Amino acid sequence: MGDAAGIGPEIIVRAFERGALAGAVVAGDAAVLRRAGAAMTALIDEPADLAAVPPGCLPVLAVPGLPPDLADLPWGRVDARAGGAAARCIECAVRWVQAGAAAAVVTAPVHKEALAAAGVPYPGHTEMLQALAAAADGTLPPVRMMLANEELRVVLVTIHVSLKRALELLDFDAVLSTLAIAHEAGRRLGLNDARAPRIAVAGLNPHAGEGGLFGDEEQRFIGPAVAAARERGIDAHGPFAPDTVFMRARRGEFDLVVAMTHDHGLIPVKYLGVEDGVNVTLGLPFVRTSPDHGTAFDIAGQGVADPSSLLAALRWARRLAAAR
Amino acid sequence: MGDAAGIGPEIIVRAFERGALAGAVVAGDAAVLRRAGAAMTALIDEPADLAAVPPGCLPVLAVPGLPPDLADLPWGRVDARAGGAAARCIECAVRWVQAGAAAAVVTAPVHKEALAAAGVPYPGHTEMLQALAAAADGTLPPVRMMLANEELRVVLVTIHVSLKRALELLDFDAVLSTLAIAHEAGRRLGLNDARAPRIAVAGLNPHAGEGGLFGDEEQRFIGPAVAAARERGIDAHGPFAPDTVFMRARRGEFDLVVAMTHDHGLIPVKYLGVEDGVNVTLGLPFVRTSPDHGTAFDIAGQGVADPSSLLAALRWARRLAAAR
Repeated sequence: MGDAAGIGPEIIVRAFERGALAGAVVAGDAAVLRRAGAAMTALIDEPADLAAVPPGCLPVLAVPGLPPDLADLPWGRVDARAGGAAARCIECAVRWVQAGAAAAVVTAPVHKEALAAAGVPYPGHTEMLQALAAAADGTLPPVRMMLANEELRVVLVTIHVSLKRALELLDFDAVLSTLAIAHEAGRRLGLNDARAPRIAVAGLNPHAGEGGLFGDEEQRFIGPAVAAARERGIDAHGPFAPDTVFMRARRGEFDLVVAMTHDHGLIPVKYLGVEDGVNVTLGLPFVRTSPDHGTAFDIAGQGVADPSSLLAALRWARRLAAAR
Repeated sequence: MGDAAGIGPEIIVRAFERGALAGAVVAGDAAVLRRAGAAMTALIDEPADLAAVPPGCLPVLAVPGLPPDLADLPWGRVDARAGGAAARCIECAVRWVQAGAAAAVVTAPVHKEALAAAGVPYPGHTEMLQALAAAADGTLPPVRMMLANEELRVVLVTIHVSLKRALELLDFDAVLSTLAIAHEAGRRLGLNDARAPRIAVAGLNPHAGEGGLFGDEEQRFIGPAVAAARERGIDAHGPFAPDTVFMRARRGEFDLVVAMTHDHGLIPVKYLGVEDGVNVTLGLPFVRTSPDHGTAFDIAGQGVADPSSLLAALRWARRLAAAR
């Protein structure tokens, strides 16, 4: 359900009204969803009960431990109760998908500050999902963020760190493991039919370093990681100049682009609009997608939020779950 | 004319055939232009002689010191003679514009390696033009690169350096002087009619640092530079998250975007295609524009080069010269 004070509940109700929630159940709070416009809700105890929900009723999965007054919170404000509840909803959804009772998790927006106010020790969904998917010995799965729209698919090597820190984190292993994860996702999705997906690697520096003149990361480890990936049967190319590789992928030359930094990858994905953008977490042992926008506190509760990105997230979740 | 072995001569001839060179003269080599498809050329000694050139003749301005065999060079190869000749053409054009005999310089593509092979001590046009425009005491004018197309205009704080070096070069003065240069250019161009152009500043880090969580450059000097610019009457805003600010400008919320790095700015400008992109050097004491592509050695001499970006460069040069 996401943060109860944000646009998550509204876009879920809009998606339900458009018939886009067929087969889906909302891990959330029924009163919050009614406040967001749901005519009728039906509370169920497990996903298997979905079949018994009458038409026209938004199915809500009971989430243990939610506060009783969630639907009384003001719209558009950071609140620890909303942050804590959002975390409980995520845990609940992951539990059912791990139990095999659901095929995918689609998350509505959470607010970083609300999570922090609730003492949730993760800055966002990705880190929390990674922890929930940890192995018995605590090992975290290597996850990568993929941003996708109808024209472009980008997988990021680094995400929510400063650009300075990103330069420190980038190395041969980070690039090669991203290529392996991107290849596996692209293969499952059938991005290049039955063939290996064509992956372009965007360099880090202007003109991909111009032969070492503007930085040596391309020569030191990005190029070698591309070569190592090719030896493993990954159809990787580059590194290419960052300023033209996304345009080339958009025109169909590549199925996926691997970008070194958050903004090299997200600037082109978002340039034409965020409406149909989707965030996919690759590397988890289950399917997870989300809309490519935040809680939009400035418009929450006004009935104007656009569900397009959530609809795209639902489409991609079905597509990924079917490919699994 | 640019590098004689690249697509520069061809796109000039294509632009001439389309009537886009009215009032313009090519500082170049007549034989090279004829090899590139010009039916007739007319050699003149100074821009004032242009009026006497018969219709259908491509006017060529005599450039002192060109080698005699330029038109015999193979297409698409790095050659010191082509690099040296390209530099002579630039010097000639700048000399006439500095003498007041021409209103603007439009440059065709040069090749970095050919310039270097000829011993030209500049990596590209911008640095060479800056040196040619130096004050008597050797002080270089502070120049900035603007990339523009019909949808988006971006001014860059740093350009042809590694990302690591860009992080070192960025500071309060670099951002503030870029804002001042961008403001002046936008005002002259009338981008916001008679009002100050609305300038958005893209942050450096993901989410513009997320309040210091992902880097502190926004708090340390980018935000303060925006505040200082506003005190000077510059309509500057931000810093904003890099991944959405270009989309916002494209939709009309801002007239210009100032970007901290080469690729933050160029990825969105080039994403929809490089055909109508233009490179404008701001801060020089004269107007200078160029197409937003290189010598394209792989297709030079085949008659397939697209003159669109040069046509756009000519349009912008006229527009800027008229605003001066």
